[in-house]
Amino acid sequence: MARILTGIQSSGRPHLGNILGAILPGIELSKNPENESFFFIADLHSLTSLKDGALRTEYVRAVAAAWLALGFDYKKNVFWRQSRIQEHTELAWYLNCFTPFPMLANATSFKEKSEKLADVNAGLFTYPVLQAADILLYDANIIPVGKDQKQHLEMTKDIANRFNQLAGEDILILPEPQIDEAVMTVPGIDGQKMSKSYHNYIDIFVPENDLKKVTKKIVSDSTALEDPKNPETDITFKLYSLVASPSDVAAMRQNYEKGGYGYGHAKQALFECLLEKFAEPRKIFNYYMENESELEAILKEGEEKARAIAQQTITKVRKVLGFSS
Amino acid sequence: MARILTGIQSSGRPHLGNILGAILPGIELSKNPENESFFFIADLHSLTSLKDGALRTEYVRAVAAAWLALGFDYKKNVFWRQSRIQEHTELAWYLNCFTPFPMLANATSFKEKSEKLADVNAGLFTYPVLQAADILLYDANIIPVGKDQKQHLEMTKDIANRFNQLAGEDILILPEPQIDEAVMTVPGIDGQKMSKSYHNYIDIFVPENDLKKVTKKIVSDSTALEDPKNPETDITFKLYSLVASPSDVAAMRQNYEKGGYGYGHAKQALFECLLEKFAEPRKIFNYYMENESELEAILKEGEEKARAIAQQTITKVRKVLGFSS
Repeated sequence: MARILTGIQSSGRPHLGNILGAILPGIELSKNPENESFFFIADLHSLTSLKDGALRTEYVRAVAAAWLALGFDYKKNVFWRQSRIQEHTELAWYLNCFTPFPMLANATSFKEKSEKLADVNAGLFTYPVLQAADILLYDANIIPVGKDQKQHLEMTKDIANRFNQLAGEDILILPEPQIDEAVMTVPGIDGQKMSKSYHNYIDIFVPENDLKKVTKKIVSDSTALEDPKNPETDITFKLYSLVASPSDVAAMRQNYEKGGYGYGHAKQALFECLLEKFAEPRKIFNYYMENESELEAILKEGEEKARAIAQQTITKVRKVLGFSS
Repeated sequence: MARILTGIQSSGRPHLGNILGAILPGIELSKNPENESFFFIADLHSLTSLKDGALRTEYVRAVAAAWLALGFDYKKNVFWRQSRIQEHTELAWYLNCFTPFPMLANATSFKEKSEKLADVNAGLFTYPVLQAADILLYDANIIPVGKDQKQHLEMTKDIANRFNQLAGEDILILPEPQIDEAVMTVPGIDGQKMSKSYHNYIDIFVPENDLKKVTKKIVSDSTALEDPKNPETDITFKLYSLVASPSDVAAMRQNYEKGGYGYGHAKQALFECLLEKFAEPRKIFNYYMENESELEAILKEGEEKARAIAQQTITKVRKVLGFSS
């Protein structure tokens, strides 16, 4: 039985790109009875870029509500907010002292980000160490990550090795990355990758009218209604093919190719498809967003499970380092 | 009423240099009824250089026993081990995200240490941020520091300012350094500054015979017993003048200047003076070292007081940052 651990970003409300690219595959993975799934909302990490506390609270709530709405089973799995378990930052400090400074200074992700961002802070610099703590605290075996995170996983193993060497035994479990080469890329309404920072995303949890408005804004070319259209180059078709059933996609492809079918029709079909596909999640999402205390109770339940495990690990670590009485 | 906060190093058993240069002045300061004194053993910081857990436990115990033995009033003041209050590392993470990377990279102390040390780790790099957390967690007003720590205090104020600016109110109290220009320099038995790393220290808590042995090893010149000697250049005399009464010092000075008084006599006088001056502390120190559970209970009492205050601060900080429910 492998323990799979995933940190969930919380720097915004989840959009269609997050849902198709991360949430639904994550939920699928968590259904495997061979695995134990540990999913946490990485709100401590979000502080490296997002400073607004009210926004963070809203985003964390929306992220939790979205995962639950899309079918994540919080009873079977472990689901928590990173910030609620103090052992994350405690272990991060210990691990800082086992992390060579040049290893962080040479990390590709830090170099890239520090060139792009105005706010290059010490949190951004040391976040691979907090990430190592996130993983090692829960004895996680498998970490599903994108290719860009492979270097950070190597750091986690390196840090864990240094600690274990001091301890003279394998106190910390070395995790293995599970690199997903085929991450689904979801186009935004302008055809670029859907992303919060490009403002080109579709939020499927907004009221019906707003959802309709955003689908109408999807960029299309100027081919006349009566002319045949190329489905391969059209954004609406691409989005539709990611959410509709194969037979519906085939039917739309025919409509595109035979002509007499406008982009407006396609956008309407996409809108209706989103509405239908996500009817139940939309209801559940809104329910949790309106019933904060219920959402809070679910998260607290997860945090109790997570804390019990984190405390086991930290107790062993403290003992090795001479921090226990 | 000012709140004075001091972090106590715990990278070794306290020696005579620590006692005269830091512990006794610190205890004196804590007796001022105008002040509230918060003294913590900075064991989390010691991890940046000391990795051995058993040694750390021993050193922390010895440091605590030494302060108590030398008269520190743990009932009137607040006395705790940094590592036992998880809020230190939690706040340090938050503050990391308010600390510009270049501020740490340009810190004089990091530059100097990273040139000298083999183990340049991320803990060493970010330790001014943990130090800021140590101070800000307790709303400390005054921080007595050596000149070399002035830059770190400026960082603490800078970080606190950035946080308060975001909060829109003065959640974190800006501390003021109290630079002690006249820190007593205690020579080691070789005449260099007494220091653990120079192996030239006098541990006043060792058995009588060992204490006698180390005083005999104090370096002296080869002036013959019958000749007059220069007290100003002699290490034994310098040490004696730091611990003996003025009249005894004057008497030894006369002996040096008139001749017929050997260094062996002076060393014996120093040994006897140490034994007498620290008779009571030696007893109490050994008592605490042999009665671990009593020492533990005293520290736990302090930790409860410290935790209550740290939790008040962290609650306010979490609220601003959106980490509270």
